[in-house]
Amino acid sequence: MRTTNVILQLICPDRPGLVSELAGWVAVNGGNIQHADHHTDIGMGLFLSRIEWCLDGFGLTRQSIVLEVQALGDRLEGKAEVHFSDELTNVAIFVSKQSHCLLDLLWRVRSGELPMNVPLVISNHLDLATLCEEFGVHFEYIPVENGDKLTSESSILKLLTEHQVKLAVLAKYMQILSSDFLKNFPSVINIHHSFLPAFKGAQPYHRAWERGVKLIGATAHYVTEDLDDGPIIDQTIANVSHRDEVDDLIRKGRDTERLALARALRLHLRRQVMVYCGRTAIFA
Amino acid sequence: MRTTNVILQLICPDRPGLVSELAGWVAVNGGNIQHADHHTDIGMGLFLSRIEWCLDGFGLTRQSIVLEVQALGDRLEGKAEVHFSDELTNVAIFVSKQSHCLLDLLWRVRSGELPMNVPLVISNHLDLATLCEEFGVHFEYIPVENGDKLTSESSILKLLTEHQVKLAVLAKYMQILSSDFLKNFPSVINIHHSFLPAFKGAQPYHRAWERGVKLIGATAHYVTEDLDDGPIIDQTIANVSHRDEVDDLIRKGRDTERLALARALRLHLRRQVMVYCGRTAIFA
Amino acid sequence: MRTTNVILQLICPDRPGLVSELAGWVAVNGGNIQHADHHTDIGMGLFLSRIEWCLDGFGLTRQSIVLEVQALGDRLEGKAEVHFSDELTNVAIFVSKQSHCLLDLLWRVRSGELPMNVPLVISNHLDLATLCEEFGVHFEYIPVENGDKLTSESSILKLLTEHQVKLAVLAKYMQILSSDFLKNFPSVINIHHSFLPAFKGAQPYHRAWERGVKLIGATAHYVTEDLDDGPIIDQTIANVSHRDEVDDLIRKGRDTERLALARALRLHLRRQVMVYCGRTAIFA
Amino acid sequence: MRTTNVILQLICPDRPGLVSELAGWVAVNGGNIQHADHHTDIGMGLFLSRIEWCLDGFGLTRQSIVLEVQALGDRLEGKAEVHFSDELTNVAIFVSKQSHCLLDLLWRVRSGELPMNVPLVISNHLDLATLCEEFGVHFEYIPVENGDKLTSESSILKLLTEHQVKLAVLAKYMQILSSDFLKNFPSVINIHHSFLPAFKGAQPYHRAWERGVKLIGATAHYVTEDLDDGPIIDQTIANVSHRDEVDDLIRKGRDTERLALARALRLHLRRQVMVYCGRTAIFA
Repeated sequence: MRTTNVILQLICPDRPGLVSELAGWVAVNGGNIQHADHHTDIGMGLFLSRIEWCLDGFGLTRQSIVLEVQALGDRLEGKAEVHFSDELTNVAIFVSKQSHCLLDLLWRVRSGELPMNVPLVISNHLDLATLCEEFGVHFEYIPVENGDKLTSESSILKLLTEHQVKLAVLAKYMQILSSDFLKNFPSVINIHHSFLPAFKGAQPYHRAWERGVKLIGATAHYVTEDLDDGPIIDQTIANVSHRDEVDDLIRKGRDTERLALARALRLHLRRQVMVYCGRTAIFA
Repeated sequence: MRTTNVILQLICPDRPGLVSELAGWVAVNGGNIQHADHHTDIGMGLFLSRIEWCLDGFGLTRQSIVLEVQALGDRLEGKAEVHFSDELTNVAIFVSKQSHCLLDLLWRVRSGELPMNVPLVISNHLDLATLCEEFGVHFEYIPVENGDKLTSESSILKLLTEHQVKLAVLAKYMQILSSDFLKNFPSVINIHHSFLPAFKGAQPYHRAWERGVKLIGATAHYVTEDLDDGPIIDQTIANVSHRDEVDDLIRKGRDTERLALARALRLHLRRQVMVYCGRTAIFA
Repeated sequence: MRTTNVILQLICPDRPGLVSELAGWVAVNGGNIQHADHHTDIGMGLFLSRIEWCLDGFGLTRQSIVLEVQALGDRLEGKAEVHFSDELTNVAIFVSKQSHCLLDLLWRVRSGELPMNVPLVISNHLDLATLCEEFGVHFEYIPVENGDKLTSESSILKLLTEHQVKLAVLAKYMQILSSDFLKNFPSVINIHHSFLPAFKGAQPYHRAWERGVKLIGATAHYVTEDLDDGPIIDQTIANVSHRDEVDDLIRKGRDTERLALARALRLHLRRQVMVYCGRTAIFA
Repeated sequence: MRTTNVILQLICPDRPGLVSELAGWVAVNGGNIQHADHHTDIGMGLFLSRIEWCLDGFGLTRQSIVLEVQALGDRLEGKAEVHFSDELTNVAIFVSKQSHCLLDLLWRVRSGELPMNVPLVISNHLDLATLCEEFGVHFEYIPVENGDKLTSESSILKLLTEHQVKLAVLAKYMQILSSDFLKNFPSVINIHHSFLPAFKGAQPYHRAWERGVKLIGATAHYVTEDLDDGPIIDQTIANVSHRDEVDDLIRKGRDTERLALARALRLHLRRQVMVYCGRTAIFA
């Protein structure tokens, strides 16, 4: 059986002694570090750290750990977070009509690959209601009526609050979230069906076909107000040839999309992603 | 010992019976087809074909083959070309200061991977003269003085004619060839240090680093007047991480550049590339 | 809408004029070839060909095509087969307890990626009965009781006949089919969870972990009497590191298994695989 | 300009407080950690650590650092090593007749990719003497005469001592080093032309071709007495198809060999490889 681990993530201005300070705090409380990754972005003068140790035998309660980590972050003038590996994150999956990413994620959750709960799936179409039913997942139909995105987004935000959702995953959700939405709920991962920054915007497979590229890709990234410009978490590619029609690119693309999204989500949930200056560090 | 093969390439409007007509002509002259690839671009209504057979035992002389293939192309209202596998193509390599692609190509020529002669290397800098000397390859220094590209290009064109060059390879040549040059000498392959169409233009590695991509690439393509928009022959990628500085991207990129360029050149020289409508079909 | 295509596959001793003869026969009956691939295995003196053309407008009925192709194969002292792209193959999927390959295949069938019917899923365990139910697929539980494989295999053969199954896919079926079974039903594709021929036999992931490899793989292959030695159709790999435990290799391996098996199956169903001398030629 | 860094590598039995102890020692002496990687092999109860910090401003001299690190390793009942990033390692390259790996390594040394000196190249053939001359590298011809490997190896060992060589790289050296040699000089990296453990032993490309694999690979590994069983550092693959003859596998293989060997060597020289229990951890 896997034990519960404590995962500490810290971003702060770089200065000598930081690793020592972090590791010393863990050691003095009886923790045995299992994984520790540190990265210094010299240009930015930033120190990034992720430390993981076993909760069992550690001298502090969960609550105390949270408080002390918060204090640590403040003292170092940075941002410190702590997570416990047995706490499942509440994730809402947003979809439209395409099923491949949704099915893939639900299967991975069921098989234990993704440490998360799916309290609800949100869609602007009804197509995937049955699939959700088969997997015993709550489905919410929130159409955008007469272009009234405001009303639709406000319903969604209400649902996210009700279900205590901490992360939204856009698994082929064909709507663009507004700046207002993102201000209220900033933790969103999207899968874009191109090798960003190539083919930003609509219909990337059609444009890739027209350009005659020999590789196509998919990009999983955090969503920001600047469309398709958020921090990249994972990119995956597939070979294509002149024999491939647009339909073949779309078909091959589905596999790259599924893999990139699932990988990015797993990295996020295991707190192996750190975001800074519009980029990510992946501690994997 | 490898035998001499005849390689026929045809692009023409599609209609029934084309494969039969081509293959029939080869058969009636006693040829035994070793490789045959056909592709129909249905949207464009175009038929592309590449047929390869042994010259030994074939009932026509080289000269007659050339004439009959030309006639065939005319009759089919398309473009037909024939090549013989023992005829080495004269290729000029253009470089500036970086040696990795040049060294790689010269080594591959020496080891028999690339069926070509290198009558000369052309450079706007003197840095790589010694390397050429070591490989016994003629080096021509054609600087661009006071921004006078016209004079420089006209010297280059003269050299290409003198040395009966059939193909120019830009192996990290940091000058943009003018439209006029390309009109006079259109057969040019370039290596671009990004996964086109991402990061078109200058300093792709710096921009890739800033964007925080997780994969970088290189693209070998035919040069056209629209910069970085020519038909793509080969694309190669490498993984990068947050630990990689711009220098590391450049270092990793050198390997992708070498591989993509060498692969594209080999495909071209073996007549496995067919260009149509701004794209390529690769028969490999 | 996609039109119905005729797909001709031929393997026969090589001699001059074969492409001409095949293409001539298609042309004389009014067929317009859309794809044609030929390969000559010079060492073996074998000619392999796959030709695809539109049935619409072709001068022969399906029945006549089948008869003429058979005659063609006989005349050329080889093996000729013909298929029609609108005829779905009946495929039985064999599973044990693991769901990832089965779910993946059922989803791909549903989404139109795989031109096949699944008249039944056969398993020696009950674990996946519910999943089949959700997808509306018939599930047959055929346990191997007291090691009596003979009885179990004879039940399976009966079912395959009843359901007119043409191909069996072992999608993580943890039983070895006997020689007798394979004599009665030779058309079987398996997914092996290693980069064959590395780690043949049992527990490849454990052994890969022990060996400290940096890449793991999966191999989709036709099943022959010599375990794990059948013709390879597709191989897929994934990177692993020292951080990966055996469980992580198994998890990453599931993705390589799904992709390699789905790709191999699609190639087979579209008649892009030709088997000869224990190897495959893939016309894709 | 890059500054000089201190790199500490430690392997010892795992126990709480190790990261703290290491980082504390660095901090107390005024060091600012730039990279730190730790890995715990839970099954083996081993702690592996690599820490890198700037020498400039650190409170200890090089000599003191070496002594204190040695004491640290002893106290922790493990093995601790320290390196300075400005100290180039003396590497002897062993070759036979094939040039691709040698040329690649010499070019990478020249371009600054590999922090090493090459005091000599050793070969049992004369073929590559000229290439070494062109690069200004000392070449030693040590043939194995009448199968007398003992004499040849003893000459080699003498040379390695004379030139203060710390690492030998077998860059397509077609001789098997004896156990006695390895006892005297254990630090050896080899490039094997297969995806180990597939195709151990001789002629892997021929056997890969016969088996009909769809991917070939190369493996860079430390040499141990058990042939082809040493700890793996890097593995690289390339796609092959039925069109590829054995010669094509060899040609494609050369690129995978060059890349895997160069990558492994760079990792080794930058002290990013840690060997334990017949495996490697790569901190990259």
